[in-house]
Parts: sequence; structure tokens; C-alpha cells
Amino acid sequence: MIRHHLLAVDGAARRGRLESGRGAVETPAFMPVGTAATVKTLEPRDLEAMGARIVLANTYHLFLRPGHGLIERRGGLHRFMAWSGLVLTDSGGYQVFSLGERGAGAGGRAGPGLVRIAEEGVTFRSHLDGSRQFLSPERAIEVQLALGADVIMAFDECPPALADRAYHEASLDRTQRWLVRCRDAWRAGSERRAGEGLAPCALFGIAQGGLFPDLRARAIDAAAALDLPGYALGGYAVGEEPAAMWEGVARDAPLLPADRPRYLMGVGTPEDLLAGVAAGIDLFDCVLPTRCARNGLLFTSRGKLTIRNARFAEDDRPVDPACGCPTCRTFSRAYLRHLFRADEILGLRANTVHNLHFYLDLMAGARAAIEEGRFAAYRRERLAALAAGIDA
Amino acid sequence: MIRHHLLAVDGAARRGRLESGRGAVETPAFMPVGTAATVKTLEPRDLEAMGARIVLANTYHLFLRPGHGLIERRGGLHRFMAWSGLVLTDSGGYQVFSLGERGAGAGGRAGPGLVRIAEEGVTFRSHLDGSRQFLSPERAIEVQLALGADVIMAFDECPPALADRAYHEASLDRTQRWLVRCRDAWRAGSERRAGEGLAPCALFGIAQGGLFPDLRARAIDAAAALDLPGYALGGYAVGEEPAAMWEGVARDAPLLPADRPRYLMGVGTPEDLLAGVAAGIDLFDCVLPTRCARNGLLFTSRGKLTIRNARFAEDDRPVDPACGCPTCRTFSRAYLRHLFRADEILGLRANTVHNLHFYLDLMAGARAAIEEGRFAAYRRERLAALAAGIDA
Repeated sequence: MIRHHLLAVDGAARRGRLESGRGAVETPAFMPVGTAATVKTLEPRDLEAMGARIVLANTYHLFLRPGHGLIERRGGLHRFMAWSGLVLTDSGGYQVFSLGERGAGAGGRAGPGLVRIAEEGVTFRSHLDGSRQFLSPERAIEVQLALGADVIMAFDECPPALADRAYHEASLDRTQRWLVRCRDAWRAGSERRAGEGLAPCALFGIAQGGLFPDLRARAIDAAAALDLPGYALGGYAVGEEPAAMWEGVARDAPLLPADRPRYLMGVGTPEDLLAGVAAGIDLFDCVLPTRCARNGLLFTSRGKLTIRNARFAEDDRPVDPACGCPTCRTFSRAYLRHLFRADEILGLRANTVHNLHFYLDLMAGARAAIEEGRFAAYRRERLAALAAGIDA
Repeated sequence: MIRHHLLAVDGAARRGRLESGRGAVETPAFMPVGTAATVKTLEPRDLEAMGARIVLANTYHLFLRPGHGLIERRGGLHRFMAWSGLVLTDSGGYQVFSLGERGAGAGGRAGPGLVRIAEEGVTFRSHLDGSRQFLSPERAIEVQLALGADVIMAFDECPPALADRAYHEASLDRTQRWLVRCRDAWRAGSERRAGEGLAPCALFGIAQGGLFPDLRARAIDAAAALDLPGYALGGYAVGEEPAAMWEGVARDAPLLPADRPRYLMGVGTPEDLLAGVAAGIDLFDCVLPTRCARNGLLFTSRGKLTIRNARFAEDDRPVDPACGCPTCRTFSRAYLRHLFRADEILGLRANTVHNLHFYLDLMAGARAAIEEGRFAAYRRERLAALAAGIDA
């Protein structure tokens, strides 16, 4: 089972260690996203080299292709993707509901039959072949147990950013009933797996509630009452202003049980991560560094850089002179710009290595700063540098 | 300057060493193709790890984008692409003439204005933006010198596979006149570069002649009379039957000067390489292993394998159990199939690592066999295994 040990605190910021049979994760930590059982463009050894010890994989995508049964028969996700670190899987709920939003018409209503929510679970159509699919709390846990993740997430509804209070209240009530069902399915499944000699996994509950402080508090209390191995805040970074998110996270995070790991789902920018750490968050994931990399947007210690910009055509400097990643040690901005313009895959890979390295390095710096009781200064310095601009 | 030392011979097969200021290349050698100054999907360290010591880059592509001037100002191709081994550039002629063929109508005639050949040189349109471009012997050498390759190729016409004898004769005469102009431009450019303290480069002549033995012999004699650092056979693997190519190469290769490196351009399959080595060829290049990799076609010691095939869906074995490449040491067929079906870039990269490793390993085996005087047996064994089929 996973345990989170608090090693130091600095204000609300926490320095901890997530321990499991598969090794330890130093927190606060950023989890690279490996949607389809691969952190796009990278090999496992690339992730190891940059210090990643836990990655996220998407239940929705793997459920549809290649199927959780196939991965279970391969010995689980770790063996399938040749990854020796930890794996956290989301529950599929977020993708299922995003699918509904993507399919929504101008009136904000889901397209006919794309996603249908009922008490029992959610019926939706596969984005791959249009086939009808069903996920419920029990099914989402079953799929995640088959995938063999170290940490699995409860099946919840992540309401649209603009949903009103009434919608949030109704959704929260159902999500809370679903959480109990998830807990029961996880307990039963874990017992079965233990009987087969398989490694245990930890279920994290998720608290929603939008930007309504009382709903967030109520959701956190209800989830905490189930005494789960970890807790997450969901439904942030879904369209609200960054300041509203930072305020919400700063208010919510301290309400989460202090002796359990705290995970802020799907967040975010470097600035968001620093705000989350300051609030006492331990785990983060986001597609931003990897997706931006493939779009040629590079994160640096002094802000973002668009590699296809003509001003980099003859620039022999590394992306970030302050960075020690393999990309910055090897390639110039001029070469990376050429690769990007020529649609060369190596460019996507080199950019991904850099962006993830930047994110992991930001968190390593945060961990060191918390240990030394100077996180507020660290955050201030990093934010000032980010705002300064890369060519300032 | 580049020198080729013969270390051993076994029948017509040659074991040699190409020595340059930038290191040595053990021959016979296969040169991975790095069209746009990148061997697609790979980093330089991947190539080093698999034992590649020389790569090919395409003058035509780099001339159009990012431009040879830009690369020259970056310190040349090696620095631009962060490659410490040797680089050979083709002259651009092959791509220019392929462009004409791709633009040809049903009657086999080039489309209007796509490629126009004159004594002075060739006018063509860029495949990137349709702009009018011009390459001549002098211009092709100037571009290659700017790119800073270790070996540069003469600018020649590579006639269509089905061209008749009269076309070949007229083309050969012009190509021979162009070769003299290339030699003169290379000498003048080399003197200028030496004055600037830049590394010398070697010009290789190219003999064409299609499948006409007397034309090939005449072209080889005329090229050899210019006493160049190396020689190539061009115009093979352009549509003729493999047996016809093998026969032609076996006949032509021994006519090339024995004390110079011999390069068979754009060839080929594993069977073609073994035939070429048997004929006394020292250098090969081909897009086949890298392009096939990106199409999911994998080379193995027992023939080819199409990774997207449903029979690999739950196959936990490596692509080739006899292979020691990072892909075969790390990933299963099932995982590679999943990556390929999910359009994941890691799959293209893993496949490329494997295919190139296979090609380089085939050549390493050939070198060892020649040293030990058993190349004929080696070729026989490898051909038998290739023909046996991967799941036999």
C-alpha cells in the first residue's frame, strides 16, 4: 500500500515522500502524462534520466484501445510500457465528460446521445469508432485494477466550468454516492488481487465543487469520511481565471486530510504549480508541457519561447542557457527551429525532453526550498524570472 | 583528406577502413539517411550507440530548407545537427530528377516546366513552395562545401529506369562533362577552404549507364581517369529487377579503382547489401530501413514483419529474439503494435532504432566474415534465415 510521509513543512507547503512497493516518489512531484501508455515521443529511460518516478496513464484511452484486458494479460501497464516507476491512472470520467462538452452544440447542451449520465453510470460513444460504451464507478475501478496502476482514481463527474450552483450540487451528490461505490469496488477488487499475489493499489477520492467554497468543503468532508489512501481536487483549470483557481486551491488544500497525499488534477502552468505547492499540494499532472512541446512552445526559466519564430533561425544558443537537459546540452535554437519547420519528429522529441525536464526541475527546486524553509522566496524568484521574458 | 585502407579481401568482398580527420569508418558500411540533417526520429547519440559512424544528408532538401548558407554560418552540418561522425552529402541530382519523374504524365514526359535540363545545369521547382531553383555542377559543389560534408558527390543525371540506350548515351556524355566541372569546382573550393583553415572534403565521382554493360564500363573508365578520392555506382535500384541489379553490380564493381572506396548509391534491401558486399562494394545508403520503420515494417534475421498485424496483438516476444537493440531489449511486439495503431511517435522511433540496428549489425557480421575468409558462407546463412520467415 502507498504511504505518504511528511518530511518538512514550510508555511502550507509540504515536502514529502510517497512510498510504495515499487519505490518512492519525492513530493511535491509532477507526473508526466502518458495517455496511451506512452509519454508521447519518450522512452521510459528518458523519463528515468530526467528524474520522473511516477507517470499518469488515461483509463478512457486504454479502455478503448488496446483494451484493459489485453494490458492485464501482458502483466499490467508497467510491464506493457516497460516502466519501472509508479503509475497513476485517472478514472476515465474527465475524458468522458469532456467528450460531452466537445460534442456540445452552441446552446451548451450535449449532442444527441454522445454522453448520457444516469445514476448507474455513463453511456458514451467512443471517439475512435463511434461504438457505444459504458463506464460506471464499478467498471472504472475494474478497468483500473486490470491496468495494474499503483494509484487509481475515483470515478467522478467533472462539471463544466460555467455550470451553475444547482448543477454542481446535484452532481456532487451523485459523485459522492459514486465514491462510496468506488470504495466498495476497490476493496473487493483489492482482496481478490491480494489472493492472486498481485501488488496492492491505492484509491484516491476526488473532491469537486467548482468555485463554490462551501460545496468544496462539503465534498472534501464527505470524501475524507471514507478514510481513503489519498485525495484529489478535481475541476480546476477547466476554464476559470488563474487567480480564481489559485484562490480556490489555497482555500481547499488545507481542508484535505494532512496525513494523506494531495493531488491537484490536470494543473497546470509553472505559475499554477508554484501556487499549488504553496497551498500544500503534493502531486500534479498536466498535458501542458508535453502538448506545448509538440506545438513548438518551450518553457524556460525566463518564460515561454515559440521555437518557430524567425528570430531563432540563426540563434546558436540552447533553448534555455540555464537548463541542463539533454536537448539544451546538445541542440541550438536554430536547429530546433529547423526541425520544427521541417516537421521532423526529432524536434517534437527534443522539445518534449526539454519541457518535461523544466517541469521536473521546477519541482525539484521547490522540494529543496521547502526543506530549507525558503519556499516563499523560491516562488517569488521563479515567478520574477518567468515574467522577465526569455530574451530580456 | 579521406583515405581507404584495404584490410582484407575475401573473393571480391572487401574489408576496409575509411580514415578521415573526423575518425574512421569500418567498411563495408551502411550509412543511415538523414535527409533534413536528422536521421528521422533519432538523436545523434542513438546513432552512436548503434555503431553508426557516417550518415548521409540530402543536398536538395537542405539547399531548399534551411539553406546551405544558414548551415555554413552555424559551422556546418556536423555542428548544426550535433553529429561527431562523418557526413556524406549527395549532390541533389537524384532528387531533382525524381521530382521530374514524379511530375511526369502518363506518357512518361516531365510535366511542363517542372525540371528542365540544359548543358549549364538543371532548373526545377521547389517541392516546398513552387519557387524556381537552379542547380549546376558548380552550384551543387558550392552547396555541399558550404554544408561542410566530409564526402561530397558529383552532380549527375540519374536517368529513369526505363530510359533507352540513346537517352543513356546522351545523358552519360553530359554527366561526364559535368563531372569534370565538379572536379574543377571541388579543387578550387577546397583550396579556398584550406586557406580558411576548414577541414578538407573528398569528392566521389558517379558512374551511370543503366543496365548496359559497355556504357557502365565506359562511364567508370572516364570517371577513374579523373583520379578522384572515391567512386560510386548510381542508377541502380531505380525500378529494375533485383537479379538484374545484382548482376550489374557484380560486373561493374570490380571495374572501379581498387584503391578507392566504392559506394553503391541508394541500395537497398538486406539481400541487396549482401550482394553488393560480395561484389566488392564498401559503402551503402538507403531510406529503406528508416522509411519502412515508420510504416511499421520491421526487418529481422528471419525476414520482414508487419507490426500492425493482428497476430502480434498479444505477442510478448521482442521483434527479433536474435536482436540485441534497445527496442528488442525493452519492448514487446504487442506494445509496438499498440503504439503503431495509436499513431504514437514512440513507435516510429522504436521501429527506426530496430531497423537501423539490424542493418548495421548485418554489415558488422559481413566485416567479421570477410576478415575470417567466410563471407560466402555468411551470405548464404543470412539469406537462408531471411527466407525462412520470422515465425517459421
